[in-house]
Amino acid sequence: MNAYVYGYGPEGKERLIVVDLGVTFPDMDSSPGVDLIMADIAWLEENAARVEAIFITHAHEDHIGALAHYWPKLRKPIFARKFTGKIGAMKLEEAGISADEITVVAPRPQVIEVGPFKVQFVPISHSIPESSALIIDTPAGRIVHTGDFKLDGNPIVGEPFDAEMWHEIANEGDGIRVLTCDSTNVFSPEPGRSEATLAGPLTEMIAAQDGMIVATTFASNVARLKTLAEAGVAAGRSICLLGRAMKRMVSAAEETGVLTGFPGTIPAEQAVDVPRQNLMLIVTGSQGERRAASAALSRGKYLGLEMKEGDTFLFSSKTIPGNERGVIRIMNAFSEMGVEVVDDRGGRYHVSGHANRPDIEAVHELLRPKILIPMHGEHRHLREHAKLAMAKGIQSEVATNGTMIDLTGDVPKVVEYIETGRTYLDGSVLIGAFDGVVRDRIRMALNGHVLITVIIDEDDVPLGDAWVELMGLPEVGKRGAAVADQIEDELSEFLERASDKVIANDDKMDEAIRRIARQVTMEEVGKKPEVTVVVSRLMAG
Amino acid sequence: MNAYVYGYGPEGKERLIVVDLGVTFPDMDSSPGVDLIMADIAWLEENAARVEAIFITHAHEDHIGALAHYWPKLRKPIFARKFTGKIGAMKLEEAGISADEITVVAPRPQVIEVGPFKVQFVPISHSIPESSALIIDTPAGRIVHTGDFKLDGNPIVGEPFDAEMWHEIANEGDGIRVLTCDSTNVFSPEPGRSEATLAGPLTEMIAAQDGMIVATTFASNVARLKTLAEAGVAAGRSICLLGRAMKRMVSAAEETGVLTGFPGTIPAEQAVDVPRQNLMLIVTGSQGERRAASAALSRGKYLGLEMKEGDTFLFSSKTIPGNERGVIRIMNAFSEMGVEVVDDRGGRYHVSGHANRPDIEAVHELLRPKILIPMHGEHRHLREHAKLAMAKGIQSEVATNGTMIDLTGDVPKVVEYIETGRTYLDGSVLIGAFDGVVRDRIRMALNGHVLITVIIDEDDVPLGDAWVELMGLPEVGKRGAAVADQIEDELSEFLERASDKVIANDDKMDEAIRRIARQVTMEEVGKKPEVTVVVSRLMAG
Repeated sequence: MNAYVYGYGPEGKERLIVVDLGVTFPDMDSSPGVDLIMADIAWLEENAARVEAIFITHAHEDHIGALAHYWPKLRKPIFARKFTGKIGAMKLEEAGISADEITVVAPRPQVIEVGPFKVQFVPISHSIPESSALIIDTPAGRIVHTGDFKLDGNPIVGEPFDAEMWHEIANEGDGIRVLTCDSTNVFSPEPGRSEATLAGPLTEMIAAQDGMIVATTFASNVARLKTLAEAGVAAGRSICLLGRAMKRMVSAAEETGVLTGFPGTIPAEQAVDVPRQNLMLIVTGSQGERRAASAALSRGKYLGLEMKEGDTFLFSSKTIPGNERGVIRIMNAFSEMGVEVVDDRGGRYHVSGHANRPDIEAVHELLRPKILIPMHGEHRHLREHAKLAMAKGIQSEVATNGTMIDLTGDVPKVVEYIETGRTYLDGSVLIGAFDGVVRDRIRMALNGHVLITVIIDEDDVPLGDAWVELMGLPEVGKRGAAVADQIEDELSEFLERASDKVIANDDKMDEAIRRIARQVTMEEVGKKPEVTVVVSRLMAG
Repeated sequence: MNAYVYGYGPEGKERLIVVDLGVTFPDMDSSPGVDLIMADIAWLEENAARVEAIFITHAHEDHIGALAHYWPKLRKPIFARKFTGKIGAMKLEEAGISADEITVVAPRPQVIEVGPFKVQFVPISHSIPESSALIIDTPAGRIVHTGDFKLDGNPIVGEPFDAEMWHEIANEGDGIRVLTCDSTNVFSPEPGRSEATLAGPLTEMIAAQDGMIVATTFASNVARLKTLAEAGVAAGRSICLLGRAMKRMVSAAEETGVLTGFPGTIPAEQAVDVPRQNLMLIVTGSQGERRAASAALSRGKYLGLEMKEGDTFLFSSKTIPGNERGVIRIMNAFSEMGVEVVDDRGGRYHVSGHANRPDIEAVHELLRPKILIPMHGEHRHLREHAKLAMAKGIQSEVATNGTMIDLTGDVPKVVEYIETGRTYLDGSVLIGAFDGVVRDRIRMALNGHVLITVIIDEDDVPLGDAWVELMGLPEVGKRGAAVADQIEDELSEFLERASDKVIANDDKMDEAIRRIARQVTMEEVGKKPEVTVVVSRLMAG
């Protein structure tokens, strides 16, 4: 959920630019039921008047996914290159915002001047077309914000990494003051490999299969989709793309001219009539997402298509840590069908989109920044990257979320911690991660929920017995009797002997009833449930 | 959650033995709030009269964890070797069952005769002491059930793999009819490495650290604990074990004589006074378990001990797929403290307890079974193992949970599918995975819960308004008003215009109220919640 802010100007009055507005994805452990997670931009919203513009480096969801959700809070010009702008425009339009809010810009040498900033988009290789680093020139010096990148001399789609141009960028004026740099693969010791190395192994593997082939990868990795499709065509197969995200990406890439020569594809309705050995599906869902095409196929028929014994399913992807459960579920479902599951096989069928440790070091040397701020990755990645830089005499600082750093001196200096956190898109509304909503859902998932209603009449006398409903709790307890009945019995006793003062007091009633419900449930089923008590008081009238 | 059953005798009257009664662990995705997961043994319970005995191969939770929960349903003699028996006895006693139910037996040549079976425990190397394969001799031939195993000539603690003895076993009588064989690492292409290879790298790494060292591994890997502790002592450090499971394992191993020469340890109260550079903690929680010592230390002070900048945390373990989120959470928490996190570094500091693919193949060749039944592993592992065997002319069949196979012919023949599944220990009671209890918890976690109470008077007239409570849902919806209020307003309208017939009918009321609540919530917050409706009817009286 990337969101970076650069500022220049007198303290507290800095003019600001935002780089990227991304999302991250929820999981059952910490954010059940949540649709998307974004950085909490409350501070930025309060200071919206100081924001000059929003720059989007590339169209991955963790960089662009929050754009349409947050634009209404900032209402500032958005700058992006053509393909990224196209994806952004689709997002804005879906949210009822005009696509004209995005200005499509050309790469360097075009310079975008906003307030005290002069910004250039510099093509850099990554796993999506037109990924860009930003040169941000300020009166205090030059910043290079790498965005996500790898060193790829032949990325199949999009511009190769251009060391010569970067050398030039490093040598203009006073050179580079600050490098804000991708850290994702800082723990990967080998140099990264080019996207182009996959064509051979993929073509060979696909040619060797007899049944239907289904391949999945990240929908936005248009280069990979092209390599896969070409390997399929070379093996005499018709290509069918499945999954909305994948079709959108390919269309956007073709419309904006970044993708050419993609083999012709057929729709699912037509694919059902193609003999299995002549068909290749390229589908969404490489991370095991339940609603994507991969998962749908692992459950059975999808759009008339079905995997069978003798077919092959290829993960041309790596499982992002945390997504293993979903991916393994799909692998086993295919195994049960007799489908051959092929994974990246240690790199034969997938390469990363990020610079590995030696590549990161090469960039340090190429750009020779005074200061390095590690970005992208978990804390341990940022820390490792900072150590790597400092070992070479480059000043560095780990900037955790909310950290404001003064970059104008010889060393980076933390000047403030902005209160920040996570905002959840929950259904159709934005809520704070600490609003208690998701906490309550987690508690109900762990402990179950007991509902108790009690009616008190006009004379403060309980009318009938308490009524108990259980949700997400075993019906029958240790003693073999219904747990709800036992809570009701205990509550009847309590209501009988409770003093008028207690009965008349909502808080006391609530507390006592809650305690009894938790105690009985604990004794009977060994769990302390969440309890909701509704005491209805009839009015004299 | 291993549980194997072998039978011999006339169809439907076979005498049975049970091998292992294990558990598996819940996760938030599919089993929130559950304490343990076990195989559903309803069939075995129905046929308990035919069960001769229970054999436990080793003391890992996935092989012994259900013993105390299920023994009362079977009440049959339990056989295990000394260390395994000790762990089992502790479990039984905690559940109020006499430890005498376990008969401790010696390894081969001792033979246990139960019904038509002659069973021997054969020492085999694994990551816990005294792990055993079983030779099960029946009138129809010899079965070898490997249990979990690896080929380790020097496992530090316990018996090395003895190829000579296995050769002898394969050549007795008619040889081995059936090999039921561990498949966990069938996808690991390199030969496995010995536990003994770790002492060097661990000793070297630990000697190089300046601050406190905290190491975690599986509590039951007593050999690893010894290697770690010895490496610590060699570096001039006092050793402190943290975590109940770890202390239990070491005590049980020492008491039963399988572990000797373990360095002296100090309790936590004493450790707090030892200078950091002279202290090493060995702690539970290598899989990121929230309640274990690792996680506790990642959150701050634990038993007076606290990690600080300059300390080192070592994962002498591999993350089991599905546990990544918890492990990564801990790694990042330590990183934020400035603690150096060291993981297995591709095998330097951890070796697996399971036979890799070449080792499995070596066992096929050593034992030359007629039939191979793959066990241990997910479906894709079993399938791969069966293919491996069949490629060599060994008959094989993938036996998914509940499959009953006739092993007396030339090829394994599926004769029945027993209805089976998962049983959950939920708090203190056992429930079925499909009882709906956990499904309701998952639904509440994803969708939130709306509670509605309506009171109807003696004349079937609504008394006052409906009362709505939300749990796990955003309070305020799109239009900026409280969602509960809006549901209440809609319900008031409904109650006003509802016919007497509807008001008098519980089902109709419930359905209508539920529909309104879901509709308003959907419009306001974009979620379809779980709804509980309580209609209280006052009685004329």
